[in-house]
Amino acid sequence: MAPSHDIAHVGHVELLTPEPEKSLWFFTEIMGLTENGRDGDSVYLRTWDDYEHHSLKLTAHSTSGIRRTALRASSQEALDRRVKALDAAGRGIGWIDGDAGIGPTYLATDPDGHEFELYWESEWYQPPEELRPALKNQAQAYPGRGVSVRRLDHVNFLAAQVEPNGDFVRDLLGGEATEQIRLDTGKIAAQWLHFGNKSYDLVYTEDWTGSNGRLHHIAFATDTREDILRAADIFLENDVFIETGPHKHAIQQTFFLYVYEPGGNRIELCNPVARLILAPDWKTITWTQAERAKGQAWGLKTIESFHTHGTPPVE
Amino acid sequence: MAPSHDIAHVGHVELLTPEPEKSLWFFTEIMGLTENGRDGDSVYLRTWDDYEHHSLKLTAHSTSGIRRTALRASSQEALDRRVKALDAAGRGIGWIDGDAGIGPTYLATDPDGHEFELYWESEWYQPPEELRPALKNQAQAYPGRGVSVRRLDHVNFLAAQVEPNGDFVRDLLGGEATEQIRLDTGKIAAQWLHFGNKSYDLVYTEDWTGSNGRLHHIAFATDTREDILRAADIFLENDVFIETGPHKHAIQQTFFLYVYEPGGNRIELCNPVARLILAPDWKTITWTQAERAKGQAWGLKTIESFHTHGTPPVE
Amino acid sequence: MAPSHDIAHVGHVELLTPEPEKSLWFFTEIMGLTENGRDGDSVYLRTWDDYEHHSLKLTAHSTSGIRRTALRASSQEALDRRVKALDAAGRGIGWIDGDAGIGPTYLATDPDGHEFELYWESEWYQPPEELRPALKNQAQAYPGRGVSVRRLDHVNFLAAQVEPNGDFVRDLLGGEATEQIRLDTGKIAAQWLHFGNKSYDLVYTEDWTGSNGRLHHIAFATDTREDILRAADIFLENDVFIETGPHKHAIQQTFFLYVYEPGGNRIELCNPVARLILAPDWKTITWTQAERAKGQAWGLKTIESFHTHGTPPVE
Amino acid sequence: MAPSHDIAHVGHVELLTPEPEKSLWFFTEIMGLTENGRDGDSVYLRTWDDYEHHSLKLTAHSTSGIRRTALRASSQEALDRRVKALDAAGRGIGWIDGDAGIGPTYLATDPDGHEFELYWESEWYQPPEELRPALKNQAQAYPGRGVSVRRLDHVNFLAAQVEPNGDFVRDLLGGEATEQIRLDTGKIAAQWLHFGNKSYDLVYTEDWTGSNGRLHHIAFATDTREDILRAADIFLENDVFIETGPHKHAIQQTFFLYVYEPGGNRIELCNPVARLILAPDWKTITWTQAERAKGQAWGLKTIESFHTHGTPPVE
Repeated sequence: MAPSHDIAHVGHVELLTPEPEKSLWFFTEIMGLTENGRDGDSVYLRTWDDYEHHSLKLTAHSTSGIRRTALRASSQEALDRRVKALDAAGRGIGWIDGDAGIGPTYLATDPDGHEFELYWESEWYQPPEELRPALKNQAQAYPGRGVSVRRLDHVNFLAAQVEPNGDFVRDLLGGEATEQIRLDTGKIAAQWLHFGNKSYDLVYTEDWTGSNGRLHHIAFATDTREDILRAADIFLENDVFIETGPHKHAIQQTFFLYVYEPGGNRIELCNPVARLILAPDWKTITWTQAERAKGQAWGLKTIESFHTHGTPPVE
Repeated sequence: MAPSHDIAHVGHVELLTPEPEKSLWFFTEIMGLTENGRDGDSVYLRTWDDYEHHSLKLTAHSTSGIRRTALRASSQEALDRRVKALDAAGRGIGWIDGDAGIGPTYLATDPDGHEFELYWESEWYQPPEELRPALKNQAQAYPGRGVSVRRLDHVNFLAAQVEPNGDFVRDLLGGEATEQIRLDTGKIAAQWLHFGNKSYDLVYTEDWTGSNGRLHHIAFATDTREDILRAADIFLENDVFIETGPHKHAIQQTFFLYVYEPGGNRIELCNPVARLILAPDWKTITWTQAERAKGQAWGLKTIESFHTHGTPPVE
Repeated sequence: MAPSHDIAHVGHVELLTPEPEKSLWFFTEIMGLTENGRDGDSVYLRTWDDYEHHSLKLTAHSTSGIRRTALRASSQEALDRRVKALDAAGRGIGWIDGDAGIGPTYLATDPDGHEFELYWESEWYQPPEELRPALKNQAQAYPGRGVSVRRLDHVNFLAAQVEPNGDFVRDLLGGEATEQIRLDTGKIAAQWLHFGNKSYDLVYTEDWTGSNGRLHHIAFATDTREDILRAADIFLENDVFIETGPHKHAIQQTFFLYVYEPGGNRIELCNPVARLILAPDWKTITWTQAERAKGQAWGLKTIESFHTHGTPPVE
Repeated sequence: MAPSHDIAHVGHVELLTPEPEKSLWFFTEIMGLTENGRDGDSVYLRTWDDYEHHSLKLTAHSTSGIRRTALRASSQEALDRRVKALDAAGRGIGWIDGDAGIGPTYLATDPDGHEFELYWESEWYQPPEELRPALKNQAQAYPGRGVSVRRLDHVNFLAAQVEPNGDFVRDLLGGEATEQIRLDTGKIAAQWLHFGNKSYDLVYTEDWTGSNGRLHHIAFATDTREDILRAADIFLENDVFIETGPHKHAIQQTFFLYVYEPGGNRIELCNPVARLILAPDWKTITWTQAERAKGQAWGLKTIESFHTHGTPPVE
């Protein structure tokens, strides 16, 4: 089935880092994001194709991980519908003032404890003179610095149990699962969910440590696969740890590269080529345990740390 | 505003050609489409990423042009809503049996006389053994023959008056205009409209000859810009007329290449890189006459034939 | 030091296959080579950028492996100098008639037993009408079929001892080593040698089985890295075994992909980006055992079969 | 015929600019070159793949243009041979001390008055800690700043008469012409000459103004065509004037983009894909006037300013 479209897209995330200066260097100099203000221990950062105030709120903290994932509703009515559903299901926390550039914000948690914020009102970004783009249909000038990622693409959570969290996204947020892995035991080991034509926006992967509320990775989209090959050289030159890739996922067919930012959080660069889910009656693709064991599309074995590294680290 | 999502996407088009054998060679050997059945003077063709029966119905005819553009609704209810609206506006023609693989189909025309068909029921394509893809989340094996385009991307109509046709798409089909050109006289010279996260699905451009019902081009999406550079070499080697490109449009920022297929219809290869319209409150970008006069993104002047060549040709 | 330039380039190789029909399918349909005549159990095949009669002589045989590597001299005088040197060193076998399109040919062997042929006279390829290129500075029309590799790039031999074979290329053929691996024991485990501005044309790698005369791989160059990513999809769809890649070598920085053709021989697709050795006083780069252990440029571990799989197989 | 190999490659050029600060910004921030010292009104700049002290000497001057083109000999003996030939032909000026990092340098002029310097001794670049590359077979860390061009590729001179200058390169420097344009009158309108496997290093184009000693452009090579598409966006965002491209030349098949640096000199970004001249008996390709009139490979017409803009400008 098609998603309900009540949620338009992932707006931004708040990422925690115990190495705030190094993480800031990574996101600005290496990834090419632009700073757009500060608030306490947090720095607001934006990709050049983001029309909102920020794509990433980077917050100094005692450890790593994701504090919150922000979802923009498609309208005030859509937001009201989602809040009502979350509240009825006992998953809502309540309203807060939004972050910089963001209107009234409703907090909720998924069953695994990851915090979400939903909002409708959002100020469109107005670039200062030096960041004004040459083409008026673009939010900000292309930076040409480091990787220069286009946009925040998706968030991949770790969860002790995948299925209830996928249900949460489907039933309470109006998303749909496009692909999933089902083990021989019948257990869902991972699920990819989307809100629009992108083939996924949120992903849940089973946390082998049984912990709650952890992050597997956040992903930024580049315009081309060549941007990712070039990024690999930039990471190599700047001592950014490359975990695996570049290669092509069998699941979702995404061209990928995984690195750890200096704070320890796993960051993916992804390029979907021109793939979109246009079918309004898409049937969830289910991969078996045997199919998953084959590794990535072109035969690369899934790296062991993919199942063990998450943030914050488990003691 | 966000589109209503009642229309999911452009499903297929019926293209007319006075050179059926040569056009078939072009679409199969050069573009890499796969034949999927015939019906009278028509051949059904499909791109490898299409989940439906066909992307293109190629029909032998006395002249060139587009006979019909098929839009898939998001559900039976969505289809009913659109039919009711079209009927009420006097733009409906009535129900017919659908083409191969397609259920009940409602015909309508835009004010300029271009024929549309709307449908909900659609058989999912089941590839024969030799076309079965290696990855189960893909409709058909990647052909590796000629350009190997991924999908039908959009249709660009010529119209004597752009604005009433854009209104038709917005008011009766639930689309929205993402970008447009407004002349100094206030007249809308071109409008780009979309139904989902793709930044455009249907385009209207003013027909300087004042004719009705003509086609500017249909476009196929490739996965990468490199596919388009490679395609240019394939066209060069096979005497396919290249009209303009490869280059990048300022409007919509699409990387493009325009050729004429042997029947005379203009065909675009397009690559959107990773650009999507995610904002639910996107404001239509309006380009002025002076801005349009600057040409394409990297300075290429718009080719003269862009304003004169359409199909069928005008006597 | 700069190479002597007596050898201009690798002209072609003769490859043996126990699966001649399947290997022929691989080289023509998947790799995009063009057949250019037959002779007994052999088929002559050519890449589209090859100016000579053939790039590959594919010969049906009881097993796999490489029968001969052909080197074109830079002139008759250069050939005479090389023959004299080979003869004096006792490595020459004698003159034979050349293969189709090739003049008088001198046979010799390296210390490990790999057979070489040296020649000067060579007929320039004249394409038939249907293969005539659109641009006159190109040998043959770009095929647009499968991977469509540009040229034969290099040959990588296995040898029981690397060093004497590298010396053979340097002292008797006038090549130079651009890079090499030296183990902690002082032993040279691999050596890359070149004859012109390409950074390598012949490579010797230590054969852990201690066998003689075996092949590690032959490599074909593509125009872009994107061609290699696209090739990976073509291999995947056509059940061609992908051994490792795509990735970037640390040594020589080549972007690579390794597959086995149906006869069992390892084939590399390589793209050197724009890297050339222009320095006439290039100093051989020596990689230590510890550096080699780090794997490829972006961290991929060297696959185990890289040290064990060669052709013909060892009983 | 093959070139003599006495000249190894173009080492560097001295470029004149009336806008030294803006030109320096262009070459460092936009093109991604690295400063490597200053000398009076000159700044030494280097591309990251250059093994020598500098690729470009940028000198403040009253006007634009090229002061000198430096060619590195293949050995001391090769240098001596060239000096003897130049001297005998009356084209030599004499010996001077070399620039920073360069040994004894011999000056000469081509018939049109362009100044050349020939040298053998050259200090290999030793990067400071912060510019040390991750891979030891690379001269300097990849900058990831702006376009990040790999190397200086070629110099294209304007000359009142092309043929005597081509003869100069062939007879006195040991180069060879790979391609040329011959007008219907028999006059050579342009000639591309090379010293190694690159298909051209020096180019002469007829100066329609009849002036002497002018520059058409200098070119920098990128690793990929995608680098050039990305560069076009960087130029667009930074108000660098794009004259023509990106497109593919019919002659030499180079993928190109031409801009003017702030001092007025035309700069090309070029990517040769994997094309090399390996044939030792390459026959000069001659394009007719009619063939040249067809424009570039994919049909782009040659821009008018290509025949009129050179530096320094003609009053």
